[in-house]
Amino acid sequence: MLSTSRQFLLRSRPKGPLAYDDLELRDAPLGELADGEVRLRSTWMSIDPTIRIWMSDVPQYLPPIAIGEVIRSIGTAVVVASRHPDFAEGDAVFGLLGWQTHPQGTPEALSIQKIAPGVDPTAALSIFGMTAGLTAYHGLVDVVDPKPGETLVVDAAAGTVGGLVGQIGKILGCRVIGIAGGPEKCAYVTDELGFDACIDYRNEDVGAALDRLCPEGIDVCFENVGGPIFDAILLRMKLHGRISLCGMIAGYDAHEPVPGPYNFGMILMRRLMVKGFIILDFVDRFPEAIAKLGGWVAEGRLRNRVHELEGFERLPDALRLLVGGQAPNLGKMVVKIS
Amino acid sequence: MLSTSRQFLLRSRPKGPLAYDDLELRDAPLGELADGEVRLRSTWMSIDPTIRIWMSDVPQYLPPIAIGEVIRSIGTAVVVASRHPDFAEGDAVFGLLGWQTHPQGTPEALSIQKIAPGVDPTAALSIFGMTAGLTAYHGLVDVVDPKPGETLVVDAAAGTVGGLVGQIGKILGCRVIGIAGGPEKCAYVTDELGFDACIDYRNEDVGAALDRLCPEGIDVCFENVGGPIFDAILLRMKLHGRISLCGMIAGYDAHEPVPGPYNFGMILMRRLMVKGFIILDFVDRFPEAIAKLGGWVAEGRLRNRVHELEGFERLPDALRLLVGGQAPNLGKMVVKIS
Repeated sequence: MLSTSRQFLLRSRPKGPLAYDDLELRDAPLGELADGEVRLRSTWMSIDPTIRIWMSDVPQYLPPIAIGEVIRSIGTAVVVASRHPDFAEGDAVFGLLGWQTHPQGTPEALSIQKIAPGVDPTAALSIFGMTAGLTAYHGLVDVVDPKPGETLVVDAAAGTVGGLVGQIGKILGCRVIGIAGGPEKCAYVTDELGFDACIDYRNEDVGAALDRLCPEGIDVCFENVGGPIFDAILLRMKLHGRISLCGMIAGYDAHEPVPGPYNFGMILMRRLMVKGFIILDFVDRFPEAIAKLGGWVAEGRLRNRVHELEGFERLPDALRLLVGGQAPNLGKMVVKIS
Repeated sequence: MLSTSRQFLLRSRPKGPLAYDDLELRDAPLGELADGEVRLRSTWMSIDPTIRIWMSDVPQYLPPIAIGEVIRSIGTAVVVASRHPDFAEGDAVFGLLGWQTHPQGTPEALSIQKIAPGVDPTAALSIFGMTAGLTAYHGLVDVVDPKPGETLVVDAAAGTVGGLVGQIGKILGCRVIGIAGGPEKCAYVTDELGFDACIDYRNEDVGAALDRLCPEGIDVCFENVGGPIFDAILLRMKLHGRISLCGMIAGYDAHEPVPGPYNFGMILMRRLMVKGFIILDFVDRFPEAIAKLGGWVAEGRLRNRVHELEGFERLPDALRLLVGGQAPNLGKMVVKIS
């Protein structure tokens, strides 16, 4: 008889990259299931850079994870017991489950929704996931509205968001240049995802490569990274260019204040529009995005690999590699829990 | 008989604040007036931070001033001789005259236009000037479109652009907070220009003052300064706030690369829109701005002092003080040439 849930709790805020000592691994006793509650068995966890933001106490878009709290995370699960009329044993769900093997609570507290029949659970975290396909769709279409013939530059292009952004850009008629780390990732971006080119930032000078590939400059940038890569892009934006600011992963592990881009002045000189967004702003429009994404997948125009690590205990490593830019993933990184 | 024009030429690009050795003062011989040319006698020069940008070779919105070239500057003049059918001796004009006592050339090369009868020449450089009233109007109304009831924060508020931006914000129904250096400037901003409050950045903690004056955050920012003041503002922007980026004067004297704002990540977390602009983008709409500004002046709703230094040789000092934040000016700073 199940009586505990394995959990990672935040013991201390990471100073630099996430360290094991920042977390506490424990087996928490599970209470009786109360009326209106469900008990879940986690199946996959979505590994997202934003989890590293939530572990810090910088000003952010949700409250930071409190010390002693379970690490916040999106994931999928199966209902193992239910005292809620809308959920039955065996239902597949996704939601804000946290790093725990057996989430338990009300559906509202866990923010769960059922996964539509026939949809692979990992697709609910990737192509249709808030931190993947939906972020790519709304962050590109709603925030910077790319036009046919425009040049779009996307960094972290081998990741799930960047890879989907570039493919959507191609569908919309843009010329798309990716930036990724290493020849294997770049080959994936051009050969499998169909970007027009991909710059290997580990082995090429990004600025020189952008000069070669975008001799007339960049119309639209979808920015995931920050740091020197973003500075190289800023310097090459066209007059009145638009930048969708999705993430600044290069700074997430920093313990000291991180300076903004050295080429910030280009926003003035080139009259750029820079707009930050968070996917939670677009909840009302998710049905549109899901319909579009689903249609493109059905037409074979949108590809997305899922890179799976196995085992609950590998969650911290997976996050550390992803935020540190050392993760091997092509496409969406998930950890299989059970 | 006039035969020379006194000029300041760029001898070397300033490393840090403008130094006398960066300029060459000379009396250049004036050639015969060719057909289609005019000869002018400069009356007032507009002292603008952007001149310091033009002296550097950072990427910018116009070509940098070449070494050996006359310092580029907006100014007013009187026509002293004309071989052009549209201009007659005695006409008052404004244009891109440069730091010289007797500009000579075609009206196109000097970008001159006649000053309307009855308009004070310094008004052509201030309330109706490209680098003053027009920048304030278009940079506020077109770039961030403030709404009644919104909180607008303006730095460099005792300067001509900041002072006009705040007054236009008040006319549009905003609550307006200024930031300026020293009690005299702050008193001017609140008592004469009618801002709701003004923070003295030399004697107050800007962040703490913004917390007190904008407890619910800032909707709209008109940014002239950059550096720590802009960082304090960024941290206090409301969700979906808008920032009109007009200048980054705090960095213009820097010789080393200047980091962007440390709180750049707030653009993401608060989903801000940051938009740079240059007044040259709005040339087609100047008549609208001039009509509006003129109407507000006539109604007594818009005030703007002109701070006049006298003497051609004081041009370098005037610019150095303005860019260094040490200028005594309330309102527009001009240098009277003759």
